[in-house]
Amino acid sequence: MVDLDFATSEFEQRTERAQTLMSEQSLDALLFMTEPEVRYFTGFRTLFWQSPARPWFVIVPKTGKPIAVIPQIGTHLMASTWIDDIRTFAAPHPDDEGITALANALTGSEKIGLPMGRESVLRMPLKDFRLLTSKLRHATFVDASPLIHALRQIKSEAEIAILKTICAIGSKSFGNAGSLFHEGQTLKEAFRAFKIDLIKNGADDVPYLVGGAGQGGYGDVISPPSEQRLQSGDVLMLDTGATLKGYFCDFDRNYAITHASETVQSAHRTLVQAAHAAASIARPGKTCADLFKAMIEVIGQSDSDVGRMGHGLGSQLTETPSLTHFDNTELGERMVLTLEPSLSLGGGKMMVHEENIVIRDGEPEFLSTPAEPDIPVIG
Amino acid sequence: MVDLDFATSEFEQRTERAQTLMSEQSLDALLFMTEPEVRYFTGFRTLFWQSPARPWFVIVPKTGKPIAVIPQIGTHLMASTWIDDIRTFAAPHPDDEGITALANALTGSEKIGLPMGRESVLRMPLKDFRLLTSKLRHATFVDASPLIHALRQIKSEAEIAILKTICAIGSKSFGNAGSLFHEGQTLKEAFRAFKIDLIKNGADDVPYLVGGAGQGGYGDVISPPSEQRLQSGDVLMLDTGATLKGYFCDFDRNYAITHASETVQSAHRTLVQAAHAAASIARPGKTCADLFKAMIEVIGQSDSDVGRMGHGLGSQLTETPSLTHFDNTELGERMVLTLEPSLSLGGGKMMVHEENIVIRDGEPEFLSTPAEPDIPVIG
Repeated sequence: MVDLDFATSEFEQRTERAQTLMSEQSLDALLFMTEPEVRYFTGFRTLFWQSPARPWFVIVPKTGKPIAVIPQIGTHLMASTWIDDIRTFAAPHPDDEGITALANALTGSEKIGLPMGRESVLRMPLKDFRLLTSKLRHATFVDASPLIHALRQIKSEAEIAILKTICAIGSKSFGNAGSLFHEGQTLKEAFRAFKIDLIKNGADDVPYLVGGAGQGGYGDVISPPSEQRLQSGDVLMLDTGATLKGYFCDFDRNYAITHASETVQSAHRTLVQAAHAAASIARPGKTCADLFKAMIEVIGQSDSDVGRMGHGLGSQLTETPSLTHFDNTELGERMVLTLEPSLSLGGGKMMVHEENIVIRDGEPEFLSTPAEPDIPVIG
Repeated sequence: MVDLDFATSEFEQRTERAQTLMSEQSLDALLFMTEPEVRYFTGFRTLFWQSPARPWFVIVPKTGKPIAVIPQIGTHLMASTWIDDIRTFAAPHPDDEGITALANALTGSEKIGLPMGRESVLRMPLKDFRLLTSKLRHATFVDASPLIHALRQIKSEAEIAILKTICAIGSKSFGNAGSLFHEGQTLKEAFRAFKIDLIKNGADDVPYLVGGAGQGGYGDVISPPSEQRLQSGDVLMLDTGATLKGYFCDFDRNYAITHASETVQSAHRTLVQAAHAAASIARPGKTCADLFKAMIEVIGQSDSDVGRMGHGLGSQLTETPSLTHFDNTELGERMVLTLEPSLSLGGGKMMVHEENIVIRDGEPEFLSTPAEPDIPVIG
């Protein structure tokens, strides 16, 4: 028995939207092999992607439902989705890991799109991809990255409902900071307590939890927790990507341990103000670069080690578009974004702040409970 | 402050072993871009790989330390490792996501190995890879999959110590099954309780937890938990890949809820016996196919939907080699393997059992506390 995350109509709509774009670009088929895309078109959700042993393929044809070309081990779970045409292959296999089955399924398609651009990966051996293209030598493979980005950037209300729930779970756990974190605790203990609290509050998983702590700021935003003990005057930051039904929240919160210096208080106010400056102009028709500039203006820095100040959010921790000075993607209704201004404080120290919003026809909707300007003092 | 997982000597030995194999194959450089390999040569461990936005590269030259070619956001954390030569690039970037920096670092290398074979992925956009090869048109790119498999398959005692600890954490949590799982509980609740117990017992994370439950067996081994309630007579199976310092345990346990049918009892005994049959012959010089055959003989089935009955284990949930009839990889001392016999019970039902072992000079060492032949009755 498998619980499905969405009604069949959700997948019908996704497929229709894809096929409309395919028709505009005269594409005969789309080929996907990565977890978010396979799940997007089929509803196939499993942690089995942790295993690199087997490739998984989904083809979106010009008309009709997607076709799954997958290892036998996935048959039972794929059969529980809305997909009817499930072609399986034995894997691991001594010399044919689905390539014959995939080539057969694509035979007759002349123009095949697959993601080859920004943020894409080829989740199959390069040797096998070369074998596939040699088997399909009458076909042309073109980049479908812009197509899949355009599709996935605009969420359905059903997707937003899940994102709202996981963000609420994140906000609830951050709200428990006063009882979870304290002076003298190691960062490892603090992270462990927070992760357990997220799961208790209903998160399926916490694939991403990073952060740091230090006097007057921290060194980076991607380190795992150390045995370092929280001290009075530290700024503690936790940034979490917890999941529900395969959808991520992605925001952080800063805490001052027992007291905050004026510099830290001021930096926190600036960061919160920067996020609100971006939110206040976030409307359909504005661009990612507009939001980036709104934050940079408040922060008063022209550059940052982080290089961007937010990104798309959904079934991946980070998705396109990026809030950078050069990303001119127009915002659209139901786009879900993180606003993530950061501030360099000198001496290798920094602070970062992050909120999650949905673009609406009018003011954006906050998914994370927005942080107050004053940094919370705990501990 | 970052805690390092290994002493510098560990990375020196890994690099030396790689360079010995490179010399045999006249390779000028190895190029890696995937998390396990970047971590293997540098010690760079972060959950930031959850974000697909940026590529990360490590080059192993013929002599000397590896070179990191990474986005600026990783500078602080990479500088805490043993790596000295860290070349950074701005990312996201409008049109050059590290390709110029990477091409510069590889200039002069004529024969470059990168993984292109079994279980490999190209973790960079295909367009960028094509750009890289066109910039390095005097270089030949060859498949380094066999080389990196050979290296990573044989663990160091330092790696085994971590694997032993995470397997012990898994065994401890499975030992708590009687208090964690009970009749009437939903599978979701059972999985949640188990995950929290693993984290409380010291696991850093639980990236993999799948399983199922049903009368007389379950349908597959890759489904996420549902709202289905545990009933008397169910067989409940949980299969966990919990991590410590980036290393996985990967084993499962079966439980009978309040009572077990004779068929289930017998199947469980057969599975445990099959795992021990493989363990009893697992010695350096034997092959993966030998272990597979030893299990198949006990089980008395010639085929299975799962297609393999175990695999390598380490910094990934599943690694090479595979325990299949066609994998003739010779076992070597300090290889860490899972033994994973499965049994089809008819009517779409199956049972699976898994243990983790280290190949030693003599009897293998069990990392998981071996299951008893009798299925535990709980609930």
